[in-house]
Amino acid sequence: MKIGWIGTGVMGRSMCLHLIKAGHEAYVYNRTKEKAADLIEAGAVWCDNPAEVASKTDTIFTIVGYPKDVEETILGPNGVLANCSEGKTIVDMTTSKPQLAEKIHADAAAKGVDALDAPVSGGDLGARNASLAIMVGGEKEVFDRVLPLFEAMGKTIQLMGGPGTGQHTKMSNQILIAGTMIGVVESLLYSYRAGMDLDEVIDVIGSGAAGSWSINNLGRRIAQKDFDPGFFIKHFVKDMGIALEEARRMNLALPGLSLANQFYISAMAMGYENLGTQALYKVFENMNTQN
Amino acid sequence: MKIGWIGTGVMGRSMCLHLIKAGHEAYVYNRTKEKAADLIEAGAVWCDNPAEVASKTDTIFTIVGYPKDVEETILGPNGVLANCSEGKTIVDMTTSKPQLAEKIHADAAAKGVDALDAPVSGGDLGARNASLAIMVGGEKEVFDRVLPLFEAMGKTIQLMGGPGTGQHTKMSNQILIAGTMIGVVESLLYSYRAGMDLDEVIDVIGSGAAGSWSINNLGRRIAQKDFDPGFFIKHFVKDMGIALEEARRMNLALPGLSLANQFYISAMAMGYENLGTQALYKVFENMNTQN
Repeated sequence: MKIGWIGTGVMGRSMCLHLIKAGHEAYVYNRTKEKAADLIEAGAVWCDNPAEVASKTDTIFTIVGYPKDVEETILGPNGVLANCSEGKTIVDMTTSKPQLAEKIHADAAAKGVDALDAPVSGGDLGARNASLAIMVGGEKEVFDRVLPLFEAMGKTIQLMGGPGTGQHTKMSNQILIAGTMIGVVESLLYSYRAGMDLDEVIDVIGSGAAGSWSINNLGRRIAQKDFDPGFFIKHFVKDMGIALEEARRMNLALPGLSLANQFYISAMAMGYENLGTQALYKVFENMNTQN
Repeated sequence: MKIGWIGTGVMGRSMCLHLIKAGHEAYVYNRTKEKAADLIEAGAVWCDNPAEVASKTDTIFTIVGYPKDVEETILGPNGVLANCSEGKTIVDMTTSKPQLAEKIHADAAAKGVDALDAPVSGGDLGARNASLAIMVGGEKEVFDRVLPLFEAMGKTIQLMGGPGTGQHTKMSNQILIAGTMIGVVESLLYSYRAGMDLDEVIDVIGSGAAGSWSINNLGRRIAQKDFDPGFFIKHFVKDMGIALEEARRMNLALPGLSLANQFYISAMAMGYENLGTQALYKVFENMNTQN
C-alpha cells in the first residue's frame, strides 16, 4: 500500500521503517530532510512538503512535535487535508490536544476524508521493537482498515472511542505517570536522607503494593545517578500542559498533576529540559539542599 | 522456641499463627482478648499483660496500632522492656516512628536486650499467605538470629541498616504509594470525565511506563466502584503523618506527600476512614462535582 509519513524524528523514523519492511511504499516528508536519510536509503520516496505526501498517498501518518505543528501540517493552507481527496485517511500519531483531534476529524469529515488520533506510548525502544501501545480515537470501520498498519508498529492497539479519545487516553497515561514520578523521587530522596542504599530500598519496595514501572526502571537510574533521557522533560512538560488545559476545559481540578507540572517547569528553569523525566529527583534534591 | 506475641489484630493473628504452625510455643497478649481466640485454640498460651509475655519468652514480637501504643507496650512501666532480662530480643513489627525505633534500641541495649524494628508490607493477604515483605533495622547478628522466624511469615526479608531503617524503608514505601495513588485517581477521573471506559483505559495504560500495582489492582476496584478496604484510609493517614514528621525532622520538604496527606485527611472528614485507600477517588470526585 502507498502510505504517507510526515515526521521522521526518533519515533517516526522507526515506526515508518516497520511499514516499509512490511512491504509498503512510503512517501515521506520531514522539516529537516537529513532525519529522513535512513528511510530514503530503505526505499522511501522523499516529498518536498506535506501537500505532496497527501496527493501521492491514500493513508497519511503524521507524528510531529507540538499541537501547533499538527495544526499547521494537517489543517494549514498547504497542509495534508487541503490536498486530500475524498476517501483518504489521516492518522495523527503525535501526542496532541484532544480538542484539536476532534477538529481535524470534523474538518476531514466535511471533505469526505477519514481521520484517527492515535498517539503512542513505549518510547524510542518501543518504536524500534514495534512494541508500542497505540491508543486510537475515531470510527470503528476506519480503525479496522488501518489496524494492519498499526500492527506493524505496536503491540497493544486499542480503539478507545470517538475522535479525541486516543489523545484523552494518552493524557490519562501522562497524568498517571506524573503522580507516580512525584512518589518515586520523594520516596528515594527520603531513603537517601535516611542513609539507606537506594537499590536495596527498591529491591524491597519495588515488588509489592508500592511497585511501578517507574520505580523499577527510572528509580534504578536515579540510584545510579543516570539522568539521561528515556523520555525528555521538555516533552513531558508539553504533555502535562495539554492535560491541564483539557482538564480546565472540563472544569476538572487535578491538583497532583498541577504540582508535578510546576516542579517539572522548575526542572526546565534549572536547565534540565533535555534530561530524562527521572531528573525530577535533582529538582527535589536542589530544593532540599543548602546553598 | 518460646516466642511472645503482642497484638493479635488482623495482621498479627495470621503472622503468629505461622509461627505456631512452624512448631513454636507462642505466648500471646492483646488488649481485646477475643481477637486472640483463634490463636489460643491453635495452642497459644494467653498472658494477662505484656509483662507476663516478656517474662515467659525470649523473643517478643509486637504489632500494635499507633506509635503511642508501641511506646506504652514496649517502654511503659509495665511494658516489655521493663520485664526483659539480658539476652532477650524485642521485635517491633508495627509501622511506627523511626525515631521511636532508635530509642527502643538504645534503651534495650542499655539493659543488654536486643531490638529490631521490622514493619511489613503486603496487607492481610500477605500476612495470611506468609508472603509479606519484612523491612528490618538493627544489628546483623540479631537479624540473623531472628531470620528463621521472619521466614515463617514473609517472602522478601531484608536488613536495611541500623536501628530505625526498617521503619524508614516502610515510610519510603508509603511515600511512594501516596504519589502513585494521586496519579491513579486523577488519571481515572480524567478518563471518566472524557467519557471513556475505565477498564479499557487500564488495559492500555496499566502495562507500560505508567503501570503500577496500584493502577492494576486499586484502579480496577475504582472502575468497579469497589471501595472496600484492602488497606484502611485511617491507617494510611497514620503512616503519612509519621513520614511527614520524620521528613520535617530531616529538614526535608516533600510537597507531593503533603498534598496526598491533605486529601486523605479530607477523606477522613468525608467519613471514609474505614474505606480502602482507593476511596481517594471519591474525594476527587466530590471536589469536582456540583452540589
